[in-house]
Amino acid sequence: MSDAPAGISRLFEPRGVAVVGASPHPDKIGNRIVANILAGGYRGRVWPVNPKGGTILGVPAVTSIDAIDGPVDVAAIAIPSDRVHDAVVACGKKGIPYLLVITSGFSEVGNVAEERRIVAAAREHGVRVVGPNIFGFYSVTASLNASFGPKDIRPGRVAIVTQSGALGVAMIGKTAAEKIGLSAIVSVGNKADVDEADLLEYFRDHEGTRVILLYVEGVKDGEKLVRGLRAATARKPVVVIKSGRSKRGAVAAASHTGSLAGSDEIFDDVMRQCRVLRAETVKEALALCKLFASAPAPSGENAVIVTNAGGMGVLATDACEKYGVRLYDDHEELRRVFAPMMPAFGSTKNPIDLTGQASDKDYQGAFRAALAEPKIHAVIGLYCETAMLDVARTTPLLVEADAAFRDGGKPLVFSMYGGERVEQGLAALRGAGASAFDEPYDAVQALGALFRHRAWAAEPPEPEVVPEIDAARISAIAEKARADGRRFLLAAEAAAVLDAAGIPRPKARIARRIDAAVGFATEIGFPVVLKVVSRDILHKSDAGGVALDLDNAQEVVDGFEAILANCRARAPKARIDGVEVCEMVAKGVETIVGARRDASFGPVAMFGLGGVYVEVMKDVTFRALPFGRREARGMLKGIRSYPLLLGVRGEAPRDRDTTVETILRVGAILERCPEISDIEVNPLVVYEQGKGARAVDARILLVEAPGGRAGSGG
Amino acid sequence: MSDAPAGISRLFEPRGVAVVGASPHPDKIGNRIVANILAGGYRGRVWPVNPKGGTILGVPAVTSIDAIDGPVDVAAIAIPSDRVHDAVVACGKKGIPYLLVITSGFSEVGNVAEERRIVAAAREHGVRVVGPNIFGFYSVTASLNASFGPKDIRPGRVAIVTQSGALGVAMIGKTAAEKIGLSAIVSVGNKADVDEADLLEYFRDHEGTRVILLYVEGVKDGEKLVRGLRAATARKPVVVIKSGRSKRGAVAAASHTGSLAGSDEIFDDVMRQCRVLRAETVKEALALCKLFASAPAPSGENAVIVTNAGGMGVLATDACEKYGVRLYDDHEELRRVFAPMMPAFGSTKNPIDLTGQASDKDYQGAFRAALAEPKIHAVIGLYCETAMLDVARTTPLLVEADAAFRDGGKPLVFSMYGGERVEQGLAALRGAGASAFDEPYDAVQALGALFRHRAWAAEPPEPEVVPEIDAARISAIAEKARADGRRFLLAAEAAAVLDAAGIPRPKARIARRIDAAVGFATEIGFPVVLKVVSRDILHKSDAGGVALDLDNAQEVVDGFEAILANCRARAPKARIDGVEVCEMVAKGVETIVGARRDASFGPVAMFGLGGVYVEVMKDVTFRALPFGRREARGMLKGIRSYPLLLGVRGEAPRDRDTTVETILRVGAILERCPEISDIEVNPLVVYEQGKGARAVDARILLVEAPGGRAGSGG
Repeated sequence: MSDAPAGISRLFEPRGVAVVGASPHPDKIGNRIVANILAGGYRGRVWPVNPKGGTILGVPAVTSIDAIDGPVDVAAIAIPSDRVHDAVVACGKKGIPYLLVITSGFSEVGNVAEERRIVAAAREHGVRVVGPNIFGFYSVTASLNASFGPKDIRPGRVAIVTQSGALGVAMIGKTAAEKIGLSAIVSVGNKADVDEADLLEYFRDHEGTRVILLYVEGVKDGEKLVRGLRAATARKPVVVIKSGRSKRGAVAAASHTGSLAGSDEIFDDVMRQCRVLRAETVKEALALCKLFASAPAPSGENAVIVTNAGGMGVLATDACEKYGVRLYDDHEELRRVFAPMMPAFGSTKNPIDLTGQASDKDYQGAFRAALAEPKIHAVIGLYCETAMLDVARTTPLLVEADAAFRDGGKPLVFSMYGGERVEQGLAALRGAGASAFDEPYDAVQALGALFRHRAWAAEPPEPEVVPEIDAARISAIAEKARADGRRFLLAAEAAAVLDAAGIPRPKARIARRIDAAVGFATEIGFPVVLKVVSRDILHKSDAGGVALDLDNAQEVVDGFEAILANCRARAPKARIDGVEVCEMVAKGVETIVGARRDASFGPVAMFGLGGVYVEVMKDVTFRALPFGRREARGMLKGIRSYPLLLGVRGEAPRDRDTTVETILRVGAILERCPEISDIEVNPLVVYEQGKGARAVDARILLVEAPGGRAGSGG
Repeated sequence: MSDAPAGISRLFEPRGVAVVGASPHPDKIGNRIVANILAGGYRGRVWPVNPKGGTILGVPAVTSIDAIDGPVDVAAIAIPSDRVHDAVVACGKKGIPYLLVITSGFSEVGNVAEERRIVAAAREHGVRVVGPNIFGFYSVTASLNASFGPKDIRPGRVAIVTQSGALGVAMIGKTAAEKIGLSAIVSVGNKADVDEADLLEYFRDHEGTRVILLYVEGVKDGEKLVRGLRAATARKPVVVIKSGRSKRGAVAAASHTGSLAGSDEIFDDVMRQCRVLRAETVKEALALCKLFASAPAPSGENAVIVTNAGGMGVLATDACEKYGVRLYDDHEELRRVFAPMMPAFGSTKNPIDLTGQASDKDYQGAFRAALAEPKIHAVIGLYCETAMLDVARTTPLLVEADAAFRDGGKPLVFSMYGGERVEQGLAALRGAGASAFDEPYDAVQALGALFRHRAWAAEPPEPEVVPEIDAARISAIAEKARADGRRFLLAAEAAAVLDAAGIPRPKARIARRIDAAVGFATEIGFPVVLKVVSRDILHKSDAGGVALDLDNAQEVVDGFEAILANCRARAPKARIDGVEVCEMVAKGVETIVGARRDASFGPVAMFGLGGVYVEVMKDVTFRALPFGRREARGMLKGIRSYPLLLGVRGEAPRDRDTTVETILRVGAILERCPEISDIEVNPLVVYEQGKGARAVDARILLVEAPGGRAGSGG
């Protein structure tokens, strides 16, 4: 039996490693893993396990897990799938806390039961399983390459977690070729137990890791992932590639890994909420990682473009707008800094155009000036092949500039454009660790990520807000509906839930007599609406049971009498319980505030403008619950139609505070009431600033079985 | 004196070339040009012109242009800017039809006057000027490299026109390094005379050119460009990179080339109208060109992904949705085609997943099967580095597949992902002419362009429609307003313009007596609105001069009397001219239809949904005028809020025919009436299909000086 569950650091810094299924045959995975461990320079002891014993690659094998005679924290299991379960049990009994189940043939091919059985056995023995269906992992701290992937892994500061094994193996090669060093790469495969969130816990605190890259196809426990990402991004940048973003791609991902790919819109919004940099392509992701791993964080937001080709400068300027890089704009300062080394016809406006006449010295001078100037915080160096510049001579200067910027605490990115010689120069520059591209857009995109992470890091973390609501009352309403065999609430029940949650509704009271109606109307404030209350009258308007827009006491008296007379005439048998006196809902901006339990992320909140904005323009935004007020305000700003809340055409701004509060309260219902699965307040009519909002209607659904989401205490 | 203006083919196939400013000094531009011409293998005669005579690079120089003794169709001029004018005149007298003014120092540095003087001299002598401020040009047909750029230009089938000289020079190197062959590259610099449209005329018909790439910073004569692009894209694909798309970038572009960068939204819409493929980056543009230059056009729209890594397949699937590539979906057919060569665990669903176990033979088999199957029209081959595949052995098979697909008339694109060895394989594959990338998104993007061009080519060209309107009457209205010293039309004038253009307005007639008002109301159809007509009453409502929503003759009688009584009481001194009987405008979808004279593109039409859709959501679309009905319908479909015209929430579809007709008629006003500069019909209220639309209000502006736009005949 193992001790108490071991900290995740034992996976990355194991005292000993067992390879179950180690083989003397070089074409076997179990041989390759032992070979990689040995070649990688692992300093702990490796224990090949093979029933036949002997030596494997010069290391004596033990005949069983039980026969291992020393501390072992990781076992790589590479044996046929039907024997994995027994090996897991044996490892558990031996007290090996982390198991890498290399073997495939489990849930990814539909064999879900066996995978569950393995995880259950692992849990029972207090051990953790990475995989199954993985290539293994690498840890720079332990110099441990426990994988059947490439032998050569370039050590460095980028940690990669990949759900796709094949892509991960290829990434090892690609990163080495691109001179991107890894602090770790972990193949998580089917994620039966250990997932990205578990690994983030280690990488977050791991000093040797400066940036974390996740390749994700499907999210299993989104709430855990969100917590893990939030904690990690507070410390260091996290880049995520999420494939299966298209509908068709999601189907392909599901068939490939057996995990459900969630809605891409929600994923995208939640990643932004977690301050995660989402990359579309693997190439973009690795470029970001390389820059984060090597470049200093910018100390301000002023960037400068240095170029020898105006056209490239224009393209880079376009890219700066696209990727949110702010170009420094103080023309006088720029002239002061750069004029001394400008060639004829050059421009000291940003982009700094050294012109096609630029020499090596001009570049050197411009880079030095930019580095020395405290008001400049980052530089984009563009190089276009010309007759004036000898790439072979310029490249060392660029390498030198790159090193100087790194020492000087400023990021510098390059784009070099031209023929074969430029490609050689680029390769040399990249080899020296620089972030150099053959396309200015790529350079600016990487730099933009640095600035975005900087902006996020500058925002203080904010506490989550879950307003106090009368959860007991809501639960009682839900239980009653469920007892009726319903999974939805009736209008009156939904209204009561809004009241219990403190969400403002149009004021209303039921009057049985005229004088009470007048009193209520005065209390509520004119104009009011009267509506007959009768369980026997379904269509109130048809029965003449509604009177709109009543402006004073006399009109209320007249309206009340008219309603009673109408109903008596048109529905003579109906029992009248009274007349509802309602606040008249004035015109305002119609919004939708919702919350639901997402299959991937658990409770999420939704906000958008009502009507066609949501239906036609799909102008909505999502956040994983719970969150704070700033995040809720961010939801308002996150929709394209936000200007309507700010007030257009001279209109006064809308009551954003009440809108934010309503989002938080709707969220609180899901957080505190496990019986509720969906709420949609539609419309929430928002008035001018200070005048509040009114939830006119709400649709509320219940979860299928009692108890609500796991872990919510319901 | 020259003969009649020579056809543009004389530029690309000149009988002789003069180099004015040819120099024996190797560091001079005039030397480099001669050297490049000689090295390039030009078969015509080259005439170095140098006042000192002698021989330059072994070629005898003439001492003046006049001294040239043989046919010359092109002269490259590389002498100081203050002597260019005289050289142009001398060339003109000699009858040299095309001049490449290499020299800089003209409008790009503010020296506009001298540039104009040169163009005027050229026009006077019937010669055309390319430049100034260029590096020269290359023509594969003449084996002529008349530039000071790189000596080595890879011949091929891509024609490039570049406004940026430095970028163009670097592109020559880049294309050679990427194994992309050029049929021509022309530096157009300041575009003082010859522009993209002139060159498109040649490339369109040039058999050696399969695809045309334009790098554009600013558009000078957009109408000419649109005509040139439309004619060219009917024959072959055109790719455009337009820099200065951001606001800041536009400023940078203007300072760099002196040309005004227009609104990027208009540029983007007009390029799509011209069926031009717009590339954001130079890299993307060249990738598209390489594929168009080498790959056959797909004969259908079914694409198949073949991969050995599920993750890559998912990413490529996402990319297919993004770039409009349709994945073939017939599972049974796919199984029939691919099952025979699938390894264990492989999937014949598209993506065809050969799995990490895939061998060279599996790839070969899958490619052969896809090529042989008529229902498959294009293939995306993804290769991820694995232990199972030896890149060095696989690459020749991929090269072979690429050649077979080319012969077989199907496009094939690759993405190869992995380490150093994969990069070598990629280089070999590219060297053999394949479109191979290290990122599946890039491969799919290029293939998507092929499909998009195919879809465009399949649409028959449609005639332009400029509806008949009463232009004389509109011009008279405009002249009258101008005589009043106004540049805008009054409401009544604007209404008269709409009537003259046949654009439906709410019906209205002025009645002086009650019986006439009742007659008009019956004619117009109930409900109607009555409004007092009096030059003395500004605010009709305040005077009680408006009666809304009158449903029958009696209500018209009552309303008429009430208006007269009210006005007599509240504005006793006002002279009453009568009462206007107006059609009541029912609720409908509010749209905006506009047209204006764009600084870049001349007359453009605009369409969008009214109110906040335009103001807040910027949901509008533009087209260069004139165009046909399908294009106008495309404008409706081109806005995000198009579903509102189709009918949402069970509403009936809106009258799209009338909307299209209104767009065409508003366009016709600008086309036929040179006095009008801007029209905005806002709102055009559109009713249900068959029920028409009503132009409720229109704002019309006049051009500053009489005569209207150049060449419009006004």
